[in-house]
Amino acid sequence: MPSSAQETLAPGIPKGDLIKEFGTFLPPEAILSEEEDLYPYECDGLSAYRALPWLAVLPETVEQAQKILQICHAWDIPVVARGAGTGLSGGALPLQNGVLLSLAKFNKILAIDPINRTARVQPGVRNLAISEAAAPDGLYYAPDPSSQIACTIGGNVAENSGGVHCLKYGLTVHNILALKILTMDGEQISLGGETLDSPGYDLLALMTGSEGLLGVIVEVTVKLLPLPERAQVVLAAFDEVAKASAAVGGVISAGIIPAGLEMMDHLAIQAAEDFVHAGYPRDAAAILLCELDGTNAEVSQQIYQVRELLLDYGAVKIRTAQDKQERAKLWQGRKAAFPAVGRLAPDYYCMDGTIPRKRLPQVLERITELSQEFNLPVANVFHAGDGNLHPLILYDANQPGELERAEQLGAQILELCVAVGGTITGEHGVGIEKINQMCVQFGTAELQQFHALKGAFDPKGLLNPGKAIPTLHRCAEFGTMHVHQGKLPFPELDRF
Amino acid sequence: MPSSAQETLAPGIPKGDLIKEFGTFLPPEAILSEEEDLYPYECDGLSAYRALPWLAVLPETVEQAQKILQICHAWDIPVVARGAGTGLSGGALPLQNGVLLSLAKFNKILAIDPINRTARVQPGVRNLAISEAAAPDGLYYAPDPSSQIACTIGGNVAENSGGVHCLKYGLTVHNILALKILTMDGEQISLGGETLDSPGYDLLALMTGSEGLLGVIVEVTVKLLPLPERAQVVLAAFDEVAKASAAVGGVISAGIIPAGLEMMDHLAIQAAEDFVHAGYPRDAAAILLCELDGTNAEVSQQIYQVRELLLDYGAVKIRTAQDKQERAKLWQGRKAAFPAVGRLAPDYYCMDGTIPRKRLPQVLERITELSQEFNLPVANVFHAGDGNLHPLILYDANQPGELERAEQLGAQILELCVAVGGTITGEHGVGIEKINQMCVQFGTAELQQFHALKGAFDPKGLLNPGKAIPTLHRCAEFGTMHVHQGKLPFPELDRF
Repeated sequence: MPSSAQETLAPGIPKGDLIKEFGTFLPPEAILSEEEDLYPYECDGLSAYRALPWLAVLPETVEQAQKILQICHAWDIPVVARGAGTGLSGGALPLQNGVLLSLAKFNKILAIDPINRTARVQPGVRNLAISEAAAPDGLYYAPDPSSQIACTIGGNVAENSGGVHCLKYGLTVHNILALKILTMDGEQISLGGETLDSPGYDLLALMTGSEGLLGVIVEVTVKLLPLPERAQVVLAAFDEVAKASAAVGGVISAGIIPAGLEMMDHLAIQAAEDFVHAGYPRDAAAILLCELDGTNAEVSQQIYQVRELLLDYGAVKIRTAQDKQERAKLWQGRKAAFPAVGRLAPDYYCMDGTIPRKRLPQVLERITELSQEFNLPVANVFHAGDGNLHPLILYDANQPGELERAEQLGAQILELCVAVGGTITGEHGVGIEKINQMCVQFGTAELQQFHALKGAFDPKGLLNPGKAIPTLHRCAEFGTMHVHQGKLPFPELDRF
Repeated sequence: MPSSAQETLAPGIPKGDLIKEFGTFLPPEAILSEEEDLYPYECDGLSAYRALPWLAVLPETVEQAQKILQICHAWDIPVVARGAGTGLSGGALPLQNGVLLSLAKFNKILAIDPINRTARVQPGVRNLAISEAAAPDGLYYAPDPSSQIACTIGGNVAENSGGVHCLKYGLTVHNILALKILTMDGEQISLGGETLDSPGYDLLALMTGSEGLLGVIVEVTVKLLPLPERAQVVLAAFDEVAKASAAVGGVISAGIIPAGLEMMDHLAIQAAEDFVHAGYPRDAAAILLCELDGTNAEVSQQIYQVRELLLDYGAVKIRTAQDKQERAKLWQGRKAAFPAVGRLAPDYYCMDGTIPRKRLPQVLERITELSQEFNLPVANVFHAGDGNLHPLILYDANQPGELERAEQLGAQILELCVAVGGTITGEHGVGIEKINQMCVQFGTAELQQFHALKGAFDPKGLLNPGKAIPTLHRCAEFGTMHVHQGKLPFPELDRF
């Protein structure tokens, strides 16, 4: 596994000096330095990687955050910013020689503007809390990661998070309007604005998904959407995974953009049924959940069209949720699928590759083959409409060699995604987990450009070092497996 | 007026040497050096600024374009890339001491993929040609600048172009998936991909709207959308501009997202009627054109809702186009509004500010006051739903002082936009025209970050120098009029 320490700086400063310096403007309870206080920060949602930070600080104002950064910048101390720590790629993993900057106290909703349909919030506000605050005005914030009860909007921006509804409503980048950020030297910059477009370079989009490497987010203005008049979900069962995959392309090609289009395979269906009894057909090889939303008239017409289409593509059973309770139940199975699959084995490894939709049937078939080759079960639960796969590799870390086999299988799946024109991450980010696969995804020219860009924001390389963008040296060590632009090192993929 | 030359480099190289060098890989007809051959390139759609390039080249392959850039990079020669030259802010204005790189011969549609709903095209392909090529598959490319018959997709990406339909379907940045670009040293970089999201920094969005300062676009992959089953337009006439403005906010607040929501004021209505006889009510103070598209059922329901809403907001007359011909006629008036207004005076100056929608009534009122103060008529024709204003200032350049007065009035309108939380450009870009207003829009920290970023792509500053991003020196000369973040130098705006 990649070690976070090897690409970071070593400060060589007595910890007491730093605590004293921070103490001039932070209350004692906002500076954590004891091991027991630091444990809650030792990992994010990717628990395979753990490290205790050197020091953690919890500022409450922008001015405090600015001072923290100014001091770390002057003293060459690396900084990792952190929201709720629900990320799945180790992006918020602390550095043993660095400061963890928690934004937990930046948790205020500053304004809801129903006419402009925007909300201005601090970065530590939970994703779902925005929709809750906007609900009295009939509005909501569209991107809905599975962790939306817990994850924060600042983390969503850092990872450009997705969710079930991103097929229709876009990723985080499509749903934010403005950011205030601090650069590593403590300077505050305003990006974007309340209007549709802003002049100058699009730093708003650049910051979104930059995984904490370019700046620290201290304020977010999001777009709000009107709550749809009606939302209804259709469940379709198939006796072959390939038929379900083909149906996904069929729905999209017909010009329908569902609010969500999710697939679960046999193993995932069993796990979800055992766990939450959602009422899925246990004998199906795969199910699709297709949600439609909009006006009453629109949804009625599209439900009819979608049912016809799914039958044409070979669905053996179709069910349309008739009320809110039934809809909630059908989605509950999907939303609980990860923990449900987690009950099948001591450990699981969640992948997050994205592929062009038309490659779905072939890629799923190849994943089945790889699962057999590596002798590890793989459950598939994913955003089919987006082509965003989440293969869950089941293993037992206590069995010698299984973790390594799971990692190798995972790496092969991601490289398969790249080989068919896809990417190594859909919505979970690169973090520390997929940093080697970035060498597969990108060539030297692209990586050099990334590093030049990082240098334009953070010349000393102090913000979240060792994450997201591999050094050219690391890629050279990892091997030259660059398959971008059609140079496939996998002869067996020629059939794609 | 800003001069393009003052911020650019001087090569000091004999022109003959460069022609000879280019001649080793370009045919003679692809190298233009005679004054008469260079005249077609002396300006873009913003004809107030003119300059002949030192030399113009028309490569046909990526390799040729790479070599041109490599030579210019080595010899420190500035380069301006150019599509169709329909831009409205002088972004493609040539440099007297630089090479004009025309992408006119990059005009091939490389692939249409109906399952993934994408088109891969060269940058010189016309915007409308993409939709024409996709039509047999029932698809189209959504962003539709008024110049879509002529403007190229490469130019659209460089300016992040909008259009009538951007209210519902987003700007260019929301409708492209991948780019291939050349950096100033001739290196090719691939940005984005066929999937919804890509790892690494979002260079795709960064490049979009960067006005030719970061790289030369050599390939674009766009998203295609299904042609809507039905599109219908409603015309509403109002006896007060303020009522029409309020109705815009009313429609959007009701949760309806029209495919287009355009406003024209009295002067624009007269001009359009005289020119194309669209059938607009001549006695109206303002009209709204509201287009709805989608499924049959959806459009029927929304047309009903919109009519009720417009009546509630005081519309005195409402007309719904009953067939394709009537719809085309109603839009024809809007699309011809700029040339129509152009017939009212010897010259006009088209502004492009964007404001938060809720500020519309007050800003339009203030523009009327400014028009009286400066004694110059102003016609308003614009994307009301987006809050994207296009005040057209009428003047006569042959009357001493009128051009200067028009420019001062224009500058005040843009600064008004910034003061209410908007921006100095919605879709036309900054170019050379609005470079001083960038000093109003942004503070030193943001401008410094822009320059650092430019340096990460083009350290020598050879790509389109003097455009889009002002130097700090220029801003110091222009004066410290920074009104971002609520520091208003206009006491009369306190009422907003």
